[in-house]
Order: sequence, then structure tokens, then C-alpha cells
Amino acid sequence: MTFAATILTLYPEMFPGPLGVSLAGKALERGDWSCETVQIRDFATDKHRTVDDTPAGGGAGMVLKADVLGRAIESVGETRPILAMTPRGKPITQERIREIAGGPGVAIVCGRFEGFDERLFEHYPQIEQVSLADIVLSGGEPAALAILDACIRLLPGVMGAPDSGHEESFEDRLLEYPQYTRPQEWEGRTIPEVLRSGDHAKIAAWRKARSEDDTRLRRPDLWERYSDARDRPASDARQKK
Amino acid sequence: MTFAATILTLYPEMFPGPLGVSLAGKALERGDWSCETVQIRDFATDKHRTVDDTPAGGGAGMVLKADVLGRAIESVGETRPILAMTPRGKPITQERIREIAGGPGVAIVCGRFEGFDERLFEHYPQIEQVSLADIVLSGGEPAALAILDACIRLLPGVMGAPDSGHEESFEDRLLEYPQYTRPQEWEGRTIPEVLRSGDHAKIAAWRKARSEDDTRLRRPDLWERYSDARDRPASDARQKK
Repeated sequence: MTFAATILTLYPEMFPGPLGVSLAGKALERGDWSCETVQIRDFATDKHRTVDDTPAGGGAGMVLKADVLGRAIESVGETRPILAMTPRGKPITQERIREIAGGPGVAIVCGRFEGFDERLFEHYPQIEQVSLADIVLSGGEPAALAILDACIRLLPGVMGAPDSGHEESFEDRLLEYPQYTRPQEWEGRTIPEVLRSGDHAKIAAWRKARSEDDTRLRRPDLWERYSDARDRPASDARQKK
Repeated sequence: MTFAATILTLYPEMFPGPLGVSLAGKALERGDWSCETVQIRDFATDKHRTVDDTPAGGGAGMVLKADVLGRAIESVGETRPILAMTPRGKPITQERIREIAGGPGVAIVCGRFEGFDERLFEHYPQIEQVSLADIVLSGGEPAALAILDACIRLLPGVMGAPDSGHEESFEDRLLEYPQYTRPQEWEGRTIPEVLRSGDHAKIAAWRKARSEDDTRLRRPDLWERYSDARDRPASDARQKK
């Protein structure tokens, strides 16, 4: 089954871009996913093909017009999830990425300028407003590329070793443990003894402890959620899933 | 002054990619920023140009070798900030983006596979481990593109209206207020009355209230930080800035 990605954008030439290379590029060639773009400007109706206008109430920048975007979205006519990339959205999570990757595909609307006319989201409540990170981009396109990359690597057959999809950062709500590889000694620094012990139980325990330590130190926000979930009775935890 | 971006990657062909188009593309042509790539593989020393090896202690995937990456990093010899994109890193913030954009440039190391040999960060403590979002990418490249995009739009002269850099989401630790533009009525929905009042003080107050409401509802994490800062005495707030 092909995971169908459709990107609504003013810059279709940005796609597949970096996703035409490496892992995602090979998956695209194999037909594991498809990449369709919709030029938002094609849905403008005036002579100048206007897609934006000044903000009501004043202020800098331009706002994407609801009527133009509405027609672009209607043209896609979706059964797949529709995401709109906006810093006003809900932060994307690995859990949501996994859900999307398990479905038929995704449509992603990329804004530019000062964002979308808010009535778009009132009229189409099914559009998920999604934020990639707490930084401001020039448009939704780089964010859409990151979201698609995260989905594509989870598609069946895309990653070489089927195990690589697991034990990652965020998958179990902890950061991943630190990794080491040959050479045994580099710049006077050696690989931790325990990793050379061959004792799988001891290695697993060390990694778990390092994951927990690093999460507590580096990401108190994740740590709080993790320890809340851990301290909850098992039946609740199952329900949560 | 040119903002000098150097990306250390196994896939130099991904750059400038989407940043060669639109706002960032025009800025690149004008020389507002430069985009140099360093092929990590060029620093492998064996016949097969090996850049990765199996994880010490076992497990799926491959780990990028510290010796190869170390040589690649030495070749750049940095006075600019060096970022390594990794889900184990500190989440990037708009504040840090603004600092980086105000400097001479940035070097970004992109991992692939199961990540970097941890000794790299022990040996080069100046490398900032940075995470874009709580999702797992196939490599650091899409994250590097997003980070660079966020920096480039802040460079002097890149954005058309100098004001557009302000009043954005995150800049004042709140989500941006919702935007509206013509047509006045769309699908039975009208632009909020206050935005058509011409009363600038009333408009500013409405926008501030909507920013606060949406932040509280959508991003309790940001809201908590914002209300903490607001409730702090002014002298502290100034120090923090």
C-alpha cells in the first residue's frame, strides 16, 4: 500500500526536495509513498492570482485568504488526516506521527506570511493545526518536510533493520540512552566497561538508567510525564494507551 | 555581512534544497547567507570509507564513528556555534535562533542511523546538542533545514516588512493572535467586529486577550512560563531579558 502525501503549498518545487534522497528517496522510487503537490495559487480567481491580503485590524505582513485556501482544500476532498502547519498549533508528537504513518496518507497545508485566515479552521474543524517546534519559520514547508520524513521512516519496509523503529527517543517517553561504537579508545576516552561485558541484563539496566538520568537532566518536561505514567496503577496505564 | 552556514552531512545534495527557493533562495542569491556542505564520508580513512559501526553493547542500527566525525569537525575549526541535531538534545527555542541569527553563522552536524558516538560530545563540549521536536527523523538534515530557515528569515533585509519579525508566536512567549483578512464574509462567517472598528487600542487589547486565551488553552506549558514571568517583579523580568 502506498502512503499518499499531498502538500498544499505556494512552493511545490520544494517537494520532494530532501525527501527525494537517501532512505525516503528510495522509498519514493519503490512506491512506498507518493508525493503530490497542490499549488494554492491555482485556486485564486482574480487576474493577479492573489492568495493573500492585509490583516484585518492592521499590522505587518499578509494573511492567506480563506476563500482561496478553502477551494484548494475542497479540491483534495479528504479522507486522510489534514494538517495545517502553524506555530499556533498543537505540538506534533511521535505518537501522532505513528498514527498517521499507519494510515492511508496525509495532506499538509503550508502557510506563509502571517498565517491563515482563522475562519478556515472554524469552517473545517477537521483540519489539525500542528506546530513542529517553538521557532518561527518563513513558511510551513520545512516543517512539512520534517513531518513527512518522520512518517516515511516508519512505513513497512523502509528501514533496513525492522528493530530500528523501536528503542528510540520519545517512543517510550524517555530520551534514548547514549551510544558508543568502535574504536575502543578515542582521544583517551574508552567505551563504558559495561557495554563490553556481554551481560545483556546488565547492559539493559545501564541503558535504562542512563535514559532516565539524561531525561531527568535534559528534559524535565518529559521526565514529569514519564514518572507520572510510571507511578500510575497498571490498569490506568493500559487505558491510557 | 554574510551569515555563513556550514552543514556536516552524509547527504550534501539535500542543501540548500528548499532553502534555494522563495525568501531564503533570494537571500542566498543576494549573499545575505552562504551555504557550505562538508561530506562527513570524506573523513573516513579506510578503503570502504566507513562512517558508522555497530553499537557497543548490541542493539539495532548503526552509530556514527567519533573518529570520523571528530576529523570532520576539526576541518571546520569553529568560531561559530556548532549544533548537532539529535533527539537527545535541548529543544531549540526562538530565543536561541535569534542569538544565532545575530552572529556570524552556524555549523550544523547532521546524524543518521542510531546517532553519534557519545564521546564526541565529551571531547567537544562546545557542541550544542539540539532537538527540533519530539519526533524521530531519519536524520538531522530536515531539522537542519528548519533551523536554518528560522535563522535566515531574521537576517537584516531578508523579510520585506521589517515589522514582520515581531509580534510572532513565541517571540513574547505567547502564541500569536488569530488573523483575518478579506473577504469580509466567507461561508457565512464574518471578520470579528472589533477588527473593523479602527480603534487601535481596542484592537490591541482584543488581540492580547486572544493570544492569552489561545496560549492557555492550547499550550499550557508556554502559559505557565508566561504567567510566571508576568507575576515576577519588573526588575527581575528586566534582568532575565
